[in-house]
Amino acid sequence: MDNSRLGGHYLQKYDNELEGVRNRVLAMGGLVEKQIGDALTAFVDADVKLAEAVMQADLTVNGFEVSIDEECSRILARHQPTAGDLRFLIAVIKTITDLERVGDKADKIAKMAIRLAESDRPKNNYSDVYGLGERVLKMLHGALDAFARMDTEAALAVVREDDAVDNEYEAIMRQQMTFMMEDPRNIGRIMNVIWSLRALERVGDHARNMCEYVIYLVKGKDVRHVSMEEMERTATQPR
Amino acid sequence: MDNSRLGGHYLQKYDNELEGVRNRVLAMGGLVEKQIGDALTAFVDADVKLAEAVMQADLTVNGFEVSIDEECSRILARHQPTAGDLRFLIAVIKTITDLERVGDKADKIAKMAIRLAESDRPKNNYSDVYGLGERVLKMLHGALDAFARMDTEAALAVVREDDAVDNEYEAIMRQQMTFMMEDPRNIGRIMNVIWSLRALERVGDHARNMCEYVIYLVKGKDVRHVSMEEMERTATQPR
Repeated sequence: MDNSRLGGHYLQKYDNELEGVRNRVLAMGGLVEKQIGDALTAFVDADVKLAEAVMQADLTVNGFEVSIDEECSRILARHQPTAGDLRFLIAVIKTITDLERVGDKADKIAKMAIRLAESDRPKNNYSDVYGLGERVLKMLHGALDAFARMDTEAALAVVREDDAVDNEYEAIMRQQMTFMMEDPRNIGRIMNVIWSLRALERVGDHARNMCEYVIYLVKGKDVRHVSMEEMERTATQPR
Repeated sequence: MDNSRLGGHYLQKYDNELEGVRNRVLAMGGLVEKQIGDALTAFVDADVKLAEAVMQADLTVNGFEVSIDEECSRILARHQPTAGDLRFLIAVIKTITDLERVGDKADKIAKMAIRLAESDRPKNNYSDVYGLGERVLKMLHGALDAFARMDTEAALAVVREDDAVDNEYEAIMRQQMTFMMEDPRNIGRIMNVIWSLRALERVGDHARNMCEYVIYLVKGKDVRHVSMEEMERTATQPR
């Protein structure tokens, strides 16, 4: 099966429509990736203007969600797809929900960046937050890449990375709590850091969800809520 | 339009299938409601056994999600629905994602209940958490009710309530931060309270999402990311 190609129908128009949906999802994904990247930059650079731009662009992310959903409904009603095409459209409907929520996280991090811009900064200038953010951003990129190429191996790699990211998140979180105990005057500031860390960790979860849809899409088998071993079996065996 | 009835097709089997999906969603919703209620009880009663039962039952919630998704795919492939039936199935696919995440929140609150069971309890024995939980639970019940009866007025009421709940959440959260500052030895304990509050607030968001799908389903118009005024216009005007 040629994974990089959708459709293969006599109706050229239908193929074009499916391809159009895929491109729209990738465009939405690219925007959301940029949003998270910009929010992180705004966070460490205390760049209020950039943070405000991120919050503004969330409207565009929301618009993508609504219009892609509509397009999927139209294709479902008009062409009544089955098998792989149907799975593709269902995967898209789910994927854009996750992408929209990643957009919400970018908005949240941007809000926290603004709140923190005026307060004292720790010696490391939030390099721990930035480090976690970079890992999560790589997961998000990997998830979109796996979707674009319908690559289950790439999807698996992202799912594996999510466990490592969760561990790093827990470690940084414990450290933030120590900082609060050491100097309670910092509690207000650190809570904003904690909300940002939490948002980043959730972005990793959304990237993982998207990868589970890719495996479902390619293999026709639902791998949510199964063990890592079972997911690996499903993702690597021929259909 | 008779809102309480799905289908109306010559094919009795198809009607039964749609009705079956609706009943499964309501069963899943009932379970998830119970999960949140039990998690709250475990939280205030420091009932570790009950909390463990909540965590155990999350597997059943996940099973519901996967099997309802499969059933929707089967119906889409077999009957190639259009118009209202298609919107119904898309709304179901989205609703169960939210319900599954509500299940995750019950699991989270149960975890926090276990962590807090051994530590000192505040004078009010977490009546603030419980109060917020009761409001959110009512929202969840209202959302399921709106879905069952396809009642856009009921859906609107839940969306309105979400704004009030968010305000209450913010107020309780500020108070928790004050408690941390007053006695930093409580930081560890209070962070567990904060995660529980956050989980409850997110349950409210999921209930709101579900209500937006109900309005979409009945009115055929997407009301995500629109103003309250526009949502009210859409929900109350005849189709």
